[in-house]
Amino acid sequence: MTHRTSLPEPASERVIADLRALAARTSNERGAQRVAWGPVWREARAWFAETVKRDLGLDVQTDPAGNNWVTLPGASKKSVVFGSHIDSVPGGGWLDGVLGVVAGIEALRRHAAAGTPPVTLHLVDWADEEGARYGRSLQGSAASAGTLDPEKELAHLVDRAGVKLPDALRENGIELARMVDAHPWMMSRDPRAYLELHIEQGPVLEAMKKPVGVVLGTMGVERNMVRFEGQAVHAGATPIPLRKDAFLAAAEFALACREIAKKHSGRTPRTRVVATCGVVKVEPGFVTAVSGATEISLDLRAFDADVLAKMQKAAVRAAAKAAKANGCRVSWSPLLSIAPRHFDESLLALTTECVREAAGSAPLLPSGPLHDAAEMVPLMPTVMIFAQSSPGISHTRFEDTPIPHLDKSIRAFLRLVERTVEKVAAEP
Amino acid sequence: MTHRTSLPEPASERVIADLRALAARTSNERGAQRVAWGPVWREARAWFAETVKRDLGLDVQTDPAGNNWVTLPGASKKSVVFGSHIDSVPGGGWLDGVLGVVAGIEALRRHAAAGTPPVTLHLVDWADEEGARYGRSLQGSAASAGTLDPEKELAHLVDRAGVKLPDALRENGIELARMVDAHPWMMSRDPRAYLELHIEQGPVLEAMKKPVGVVLGTMGVERNMVRFEGQAVHAGATPIPLRKDAFLAAAEFALACREIAKKHSGRTPRTRVVATCGVVKVEPGFVTAVSGATEISLDLRAFDADVLAKMQKAAVRAAAKAAKANGCRVSWSPLLSIAPRHFDESLLALTTECVREAAGSAPLLPSGPLHDAAEMVPLMPTVMIFAQSSPGISHTRFEDTPIPHLDKSIRAFLRLVERTVEKVAAEP
Repeated sequence: MTHRTSLPEPASERVIADLRALAARTSNERGAQRVAWGPVWREARAWFAETVKRDLGLDVQTDPAGNNWVTLPGASKKSVVFGSHIDSVPGGGWLDGVLGVVAGIEALRRHAAAGTPPVTLHLVDWADEEGARYGRSLQGSAASAGTLDPEKELAHLVDRAGVKLPDALRENGIELARMVDAHPWMMSRDPRAYLELHIEQGPVLEAMKKPVGVVLGTMGVERNMVRFEGQAVHAGATPIPLRKDAFLAAAEFALACREIAKKHSGRTPRTRVVATCGVVKVEPGFVTAVSGATEISLDLRAFDADVLAKMQKAAVRAAAKAAKANGCRVSWSPLLSIAPRHFDESLLALTTECVREAAGSAPLLPSGPLHDAAEMVPLMPTVMIFAQSSPGISHTRFEDTPIPHLDKSIRAFLRLVERTVEKVAAEP
Repeated sequence: MTHRTSLPEPASERVIADLRALAARTSNERGAQRVAWGPVWREARAWFAETVKRDLGLDVQTDPAGNNWVTLPGASKKSVVFGSHIDSVPGGGWLDGVLGVVAGIEALRRHAAAGTPPVTLHLVDWADEEGARYGRSLQGSAASAGTLDPEKELAHLVDRAGVKLPDALRENGIELARMVDAHPWMMSRDPRAYLELHIEQGPVLEAMKKPVGVVLGTMGVERNMVRFEGQAVHAGATPIPLRKDAFLAAAEFALACREIAKKHSGRTPRTRVVATCGVVKVEPGFVTAVSGATEISLDLRAFDADVLAKMQKAAVRAAAKAAKANGCRVSWSPLLSIAPRHFDESLLALTTECVREAAGSAPLLPSGPLHDAAEMVPLMPTVMIFAQSSPGISHTRFEDTPIPHLDKSIRAFLRLVERTVEKVAAEP
């Protein structure tokens, strides 16, 4: 009897019950409050440890970056890693992050019930995916991936209450200088694949009327602050033709960026691109003053690196044009530049099978938001499944996935773990 | 020998020297610091009292609203009032307000030197024209005009340091409840004209290459906050066609308002109108979030009341259009609505003569900014003279009028006081 045939049909009931239990324990009337490194997050992790102990007899291991791991040893040390993050933004939803962790517990339960799996299974709860308190997202997964420089990126960070990140880490048993050890810690476990189930956090699947999606990878990001400088003058005293209105330059620029996104977007989810101006700071900011300077953020995202580069060039031209038309100067300050991360072709094929079996069809889409999975791409074959968001909003207590869709996404994910275990077992 | 012929030719030297002395005493490296009700403002008023005592042997009288008056008694109690304000914004210029007060001292000196004038002359230093500390501008002149409701408008105001306005007033010897007495206080002095010299605070005269201007009146103002509400969503996760971006709605609205101003503007200073969006508040204001709500201020000004009403209607239509195009709702909150105040035709003719004599030509222009003079319009014939601003900026230490232009503006004003005294003397 092979391991495969001994596994029961995937089912979502226990996962959904667990999600509700966790939400009840770690949310208030404003939503989930599992902000990384704080007491409610520790409470969520306590629930996690209790649950895997009770249901699986397994202990949680914390790596040097604060990521929590639960290991179901297999016949081979070769391993399949899956998981997500239990932390949330303040006032977050009941699914963002925890869905993938809680579904991962169920995956362990299914495989454990069938005896020793052919390869080892690792469930991971990444630490501080959101960066809600200190602004550095994907902290734990980046440490494991070897792409985090804790001294440079983290040592100086301070939260709004004045608590330094190194002190918050120490409160949770983590030493900043040792975080880099998380990378060899993970790699020594011979990981051969990374799988993650996550809520979409956007309206794409809902608009397509699809309950579950196969994620092609994460979009590249070019994020900048753009500063227009004109001349602050009295609103009453200065005729329109004599103004150098920095806010109107920024307004023209923001509208031009939307046109750039439209022009560079294809018709499929894969070829859609976005441009967003989310921060706008107008100086001096008086009702009676024409803006002398306006800073505006531009966040460009595309799944195709060439398209992203073209958008960025077009945005630079648009800013120069808007500045000139308004008698302003313009300058750029880079905030973030991340290349697109494309998921593994072979795992994408496997995921498409599993999603189609559970949900009837398997639409392909890239993820605009970053995820821990993006950090794994350079290290091992990686893939993600998205559960539909309805409404298509995130980082709010109104975030949701209708139960029938949630059910399908969980069953697709459980099947994907099973097939990936088989695949890795069959590999040399 | 008539009073007129005994007056010396108007000259500006002492005025400019006084302006420099006052600036040296009440400015620092960031500019003038004569914020109403504070210590530097009291220092400026001490200089004022010392100067009129030394040069004229006259005392300052403070009215119940804190306005300072210096009276040169004439043969008749009928009076001509002139002045401006000694207070400044923090980091203000060396001319805004004080020019009219200091030139007024010179007017008193000229007339006093010639013996008893035919009518009484009152120089006034209005209290808190700027509203820099508590936000209510034209406070003293409005009290004198009887248009201020201290209990309703002032009693609740608190500055950034937490000091209540009634306490700041008391520190300066003013009782909030008695401020309304400033109106009968002034009216009992039988005022027959109000004259004010002020720096333009804008670039109109400079663009016309004119050193001095005759002010037609003050523009009407329609000021509102306009709130666009869409949906805050994740910048990466939400395709452009599925967004309800409140900031982009506000950007379209702001650009449309500029077009409205252009469309309703004539070619002359009198028919020019302006539209300004000086405050922009984007929520939630994250680089990764599409704006769910954006508040933007709109300040519309025109000298013609009908044109102003048409602009306001057009702006309401533009906001509705921008909201609809972006899937947003829009709402309006009124901040200020002030009718245009047209100055006296007869005084305008007299002023035109005086400015032409001093400066060669006398361009007519309305004032976009409000001035204390606007409060006097319903009570007595009123007029203003503008000295050119170069550069055409205000409320900054870089505010300036070139000395040759300053000289001409002061001489025009001194002549205007003289002619107005004659005019009032000749009236029944």
